[in-house]
Amino acid sequence: MSRGRLITLEGGEGAGKSTLLAGLHAHLEAHGVALVLPLPREPGGTDLGEAVRAMLLDHAFRGMSPEAELLLMFAARAELVRKVIVPALAAGRWVLCDRFTDASYAYQGGGRGQPAARIRELERWAALDLQPDLTFLLDLSVEEGRARRSGRGDADRIESEEDAFFERVRAAYRARVAEEPQRFRVLDARAPAAAVLDAACAALRPLLEDRGA
Amino acid sequence: MSRGRLITLEGGEGAGKSTLLAGLHAHLEAHGVALVLPLPREPGGTDLGEAVRAMLLDHAFRGMSPEAELLLMFAARAELVRKVIVPALAAGRWVLCDRFTDASYAYQGGGRGQPAARIRELERWAALDLQPDLTFLLDLSVEEGRARRSGRGDADRIESEEDAFFERVRAAYRARVAEEPQRFRVLDARAPAAAVLDAACAALRPLLEDRGA
Repeated sequence: MSRGRLITLEGGEGAGKSTLLAGLHAHLEAHGVALVLPLPREPGGTDLGEAVRAMLLDHAFRGMSPEAELLLMFAARAELVRKVIVPALAAGRWVLCDRFTDASYAYQGGGRGQPAARIRELERWAALDLQPDLTFLLDLSVEEGRARRSGRGDADRIESEEDAFFERVRAAYRARVAEEPQRFRVLDARAPAAAVLDAACAALRPLLEDRGA
Repeated sequence: MSRGRLITLEGGEGAGKSTLLAGLHAHLEAHGVALVLPLPREPGGTDLGEAVRAMLLDHAFRGMSPEAELLLMFAARAELVRKVIVPALAAGRWVLCDRFTDASYAYQGGGRGQPAARIRELERWAALDLQPDLTFLLDLSVEEGRARRSGRGDADRIESEEDAFFERVRAAYRARVAEEPQRFRVLDARAPAAAVLDAACAALRPLLEDRGA
């Protein structure tokens, strides 16, 4: 039995992550891939992680220090990696995850100014240095992301940040792509949802063909 | 105005921390010390920290990874240091804290096996490398601690650990004392409460006389 694959989806608010996740979920199942369900999300994906998520998104903790935010994110991730992702990959199952460590480089690093070296060190021991096999980045300008979100309900603690914060997040995501271009597939979130999904499925083809099935 | 002082109290379960804290609180107030009230406790002491504390002590999270536990402890500590302790010390107030970073070396280090170097690194950036001016360690054998606790209500997630865990905790506390004997005052928890308090107050005298008041 071959090892499973870790596929992660990253992107700013309003970029269409939920729609793409649903499409990828259907595509992978149609190809006979055994996926971990429900699809894990970050922060979250475990009982502890979901409890941490509720704290991270709660407006009551608006003044949370960037250091506490970073530590909470990695506490949730430490659980997710050990309790869900690593056992699943070892059992040959695939994991399609709504955000992963790249999001900490983008949000807690770019957004909140936590040093990349600090995040890297946490990635090593708290997240077992686990690297995705493929990462999709849904890229969208901050203005368009804000316009798309405006029709939704109340924004959470992080969604309520100002534009400059999301500009830094976007720049940090792009810097990640520049560092590891072979791992990332950047998708233009302005394209029609079907075109975005087609591009993502094309990028998955080599992994699907590589299963030896 | 002189900088305030950080006094911490450490020790295993059932060692008499609460009684000693109450006595030290009264003693310091009788000497005109402006204390942060309520006395901070770890994990806790801020809104976020108390929410994290509830998670850490909850039996629902019995299988929490040692890494997640360590990260949650420092998330709470990062908040406490920045929101409570550092501002108070700068304003000339004293902080009498029920446990601090030594407890992570003892519980997450000795008890759970997290490397001391990892804790040291978190102490540097998450806890701003803040060191107590004086630390009391209420020392008690694991057997006696267990006997004293037996009359209380239900034990929380950490109190429910086995004896070997608490032996490692005690050994790690003693190792901390050996590394920084000038900062610690070890108190024999088997002594009568009044004698323990007298010994602690004697150790506080130089700090009280040093106020220049």
